[in-house]
Amino acid sequence: MLRVDILLLDLVVVLALARLLGYGARLVGQPPVVGEIVAGIALGPSLLGDVIGRDLFPEDILSPLKALADVGLVLFMFVVGLELDQRLVKGKGRVAAGVSVGSTALPFVLGCGLALLLVDDHAPEDKKLAFVLFLGAAMSATAFPVLARILTDRNMHRTRLGGLALACAAVIDVLAWTVLAAVVAIAGSGEGQWKIVLVVPFGLLMIFVVRPLLRRLVPSYERAGRLTPNLLSLVLLGMFGAAWTTEYLQVHFIFGAFLFGALMPRGGAAEKLNHEILERLEQLAVLLLLPMFFVVAGLSVDLTTLEASSVWTLLGILVVAIVGKLAGAYVSARFLGVPRKESAGLATLINTRGLTEIVILSVGLQKGVLDTELYSLMVVMALVTTAMTGPLLNLVYPREQVARDLAEAERAALGEHLVHRVAVVIPDLGHADALATAGAAAAAEHDSAELVLVHLPRYPGERLEVGLGLSEELAELTSILGRLESAAARVRTPRLPVQVHTRFSADPEGELDAFVSAAEPDEVVGPLIPSP
Amino acid sequence: MLRVDILLLDLVVVLALARLLGYGARLVGQPPVVGEIVAGIALGPSLLGDVIGRDLFPEDILSPLKALADVGLVLFMFVVGLELDQRLVKGKGRVAAGVSVGSTALPFVLGCGLALLLVDDHAPEDKKLAFVLFLGAAMSATAFPVLARILTDRNMHRTRLGGLALACAAVIDVLAWTVLAAVVAIAGSGEGQWKIVLVVPFGLLMIFVVRPLLRRLVPSYERAGRLTPNLLSLVLLGMFGAAWTTEYLQVHFIFGAFLFGALMPRGGAAEKLNHEILERLEQLAVLLLLPMFFVVAGLSVDLTTLEASSVWTLLGILVVAIVGKLAGAYVSARFLGVPRKESAGLATLINTRGLTEIVILSVGLQKGVLDTELYSLMVVMALVTTAMTGPLLNLVYPREQVARDLAEAERAALGEHLVHRVAVVIPDLGHADALATAGAAAAAEHDSAELVLVHLPRYPGERLEVGLGLSEELAELTSILGRLESAAARVRTPRLPVQVHTRFSADPEGELDAFVSAAEPDEVVGPLIPSP
Repeated sequence: MLRVDILLLDLVVVLALARLLGYGARLVGQPPVVGEIVAGIALGPSLLGDVIGRDLFPEDILSPLKALADVGLVLFMFVVGLELDQRLVKGKGRVAAGVSVGSTALPFVLGCGLALLLVDDHAPEDKKLAFVLFLGAAMSATAFPVLARILTDRNMHRTRLGGLALACAAVIDVLAWTVLAAVVAIAGSGEGQWKIVLVVPFGLLMIFVVRPLLRRLVPSYERAGRLTPNLLSLVLLGMFGAAWTTEYLQVHFIFGAFLFGALMPRGGAAEKLNHEILERLEQLAVLLLLPMFFVVAGLSVDLTTLEASSVWTLLGILVVAIVGKLAGAYVSARFLGVPRKESAGLATLINTRGLTEIVILSVGLQKGVLDTELYSLMVVMALVTTAMTGPLLNLVYPREQVARDLAEAERAALGEHLVHRVAVVIPDLGHADALATAGAAAAAEHDSAELVLVHLPRYPGERLEVGLGLSEELAELTSILGRLESAAARVRTPRLPVQVHTRFSADPEGELDAFVSAAEPDEVVGPLIPSP
Repeated sequence: MLRVDILLLDLVVVLALARLLGYGARLVGQPPVVGEIVAGIALGPSLLGDVIGRDLFPEDILSPLKALADVGLVLFMFVVGLELDQRLVKGKGRVAAGVSVGSTALPFVLGCGLALLLVDDHAPEDKKLAFVLFLGAAMSATAFPVLARILTDRNMHRTRLGGLALACAAVIDVLAWTVLAAVVAIAGSGEGQWKIVLVVPFGLLMIFVVRPLLRRLVPSYERAGRLTPNLLSLVLLGMFGAAWTTEYLQVHFIFGAFLFGALMPRGGAAEKLNHEILERLEQLAVLLLLPMFFVVAGLSVDLTTLEASSVWTLLGILVVAIVGKLAGAYVSARFLGVPRKESAGLATLINTRGLTEIVILSVGLQKGVLDTELYSLMVVMALVTTAMTGPLLNLVYPREQVARDLAEAERAALGEHLVHRVAVVIPDLGHADALATAGAAAAAEHDSAELVLVHLPRYPGERLEVGLGLSEELAELTSILGRLESAAARVRTPRLPVQVHTRFSADPEGELDAFVSAAEPDEVVGPLIPSP
């Protein structure tokens, strides 16, 4: 019988600790996921040990907790698939493909090499091959969501480097999940193993039958004008159905959920549909269920039983993971003509393992490929690589460089100007019309002039870790652009071209100066005192 | 170890069947909850029996399923508490209180009487008192969410009868949960029983400390301008914390969740906050987790083992539940001066047991007060009383009467008119300004005239069962009213008063005629062909 009082207490404790340590991580400049992983480990045997641990997480509560964690994981992997966006790779295909392969192949090979040293001590007799391949695959992951978060936090996702990093991470995502699925298939054992051959027809069915069917969701979404319960039910059914199928086929349910997300329709009205689905699933899944996953993952981490020899193993893992990834990415980026500094930044960014690694490791543990010791050490590796990204990035690609990149991107966007350029700074959209009119009046005093309306809104508060947040941002920017454009339309004449310019900023007042100097205006119109 | 393939399969099967039968229920004019309860029973031993049942729901999957169901139930009870709205009772306090007490007391007393007949066969030795009281309490429930759904489906929630029914249901809700909590407290047994005395200080703490703290959420919500992950986390923490506390105090977790929802801040910006919270929690909780509750509840229903004597018991239960509720409500309503027809309608409406009853019954089963047989019979009673509401209502309070009520309510709202009244029918808000101007021109030809702008939008598609849906509706109406008012403001002069009028309609074209005749205009302005 389920002990519901313990279940509820666990939910409260886990929720509170995950938020608290996530917040703490932010305070020291780390992505929240670092704190959340630590929260999971802290609740496990390493810290609480047998004293509180046995009371908080008795044996019979584990499978209910795991049920919640698994439902959260299905939703999460669907979101990861849904946010996979081919457009991220567009125009960067060559570099993205090259860097992805390079930054995956080297840690994979090195990981397999390390695995050969460890195989006798750690691998089960019947899974030696799977063990070697799994360790290789686990070394080559990159956490797309964490990466996206780091980029948006630093305002880097609109720079060339940011775009490149997102493109590489998207390709690595597909690569890593595919390789992992193959490894898990190999690792499968015993009866039912034959089902694995059905994976290929299942994949074809998904691509050639389910995907076209999913496209039909869009017109019925447009007709309803909103995400109806029926539509959301269909999506949930498909997601859990696909997850169940891959689990049944002896792979793992995460692949089905990911694939289903990746096959959701794109473009046009579908984007709005996806955005609404994200909005419904994300917060509850991420806030309530995913912390359960961290804890279930953390409960298996036991750092207390590590022996002296483990330190050497850990060192080996860290070297393979970090050096393999950094060198693989840097060398292949340089080889493809990416400048030195950007190559270093790129390598640093895709070294982030984050949540993705934890998911992969828990698959390995569950499939019996990893033992507890190696699992624990690999979790530490995930933690270290994620935590090192920020500080290392500050070294190889300082924030001033990012600011220069942004200014350059903006200068390129505005184009060269040969006429009198009037920049109108609009701190508050309510005054857009009045300020545009004032700008037009200033411009009218010159024979040939142009107007640039600028509005830099502040970033919308905290964002969720999972979920790029880009889609929400896009929706807001679109609405802001609409208002700017309507102000522009009022003053635009055949003789006065008007451009509008907006983007989110972490520090609107500070960045305004940078922007204004990048736009190289001949005249600036705006309220003297920026509104708070 | 959790068998995740079975868990996922169960999720898919339950989700699909619940939606399917819910849809089927709608086809035959029943609220979806009827189909969903049937889905839960169908998956249990009564229908699938041991053949498929054992494969789909093996022993060791029950506690993971129950974990999902319980998380869903916490969210659901929070929503029920959140949607409790004192304003529903405002101005109807006397009648609402009287009818609530009458319609609760009679079935309670009759239920206790019936229980005395059953106590020797069904009650455990040490819980005879709890058994009697519980059966009484279980007879007197009313399902507020189902009732609200029936009312909005019939467009009745804006009539006097609908308002009265909602007010009564709100009071009964509080009454029933309080009585049930007391009964459960009495039923508690063995060690830890003393904790029950802590319930009172806990309630006081919630009201005098937690409630004021919750009010502080509103300013920080206003500052952020949206529901941030931090705010939602706080609400989730509070909800699960309160749920855990009441469970720990030997009552039941549903009461804590309900109380926390009821203590959320109200009015002003808080309404927008609550609306956003609902939006996030409702769909996922209702679509994904609540069906699990129906199934867990249904798995305990076994109609195959019933004996001949059970038929008499069932008959007794049905008579007590239906006659007790109908007579109690009707007599007390008549006594308080409610007209005959409305009293009958009111009694019919609050006879709906729906989901609320299932929650109560599962508490009884879990606390060991009900045995499987009586539990099964009571579930049948819940089903019957819910399914009979619609047909019986058609008899005692036909739809034509509802239409008359609506027309009367609208006539009353517009007031008598002694001047030339011009009704402007606006099928499409985009033309509101133009049509208002046309109406003003028509009115200008008369010495003293008034203008009424009418817009009847179509109901926004399907609504969720749980969750009144009133809050969403309210938000939309407010935005529509804003646009109508801005059109009105353009033509309003000291000599031309302008009223605006809007409400949702299931059949805008048809009801427009009814409305226009109710408004008794001297002149109608509008496009000749109503836009589709």
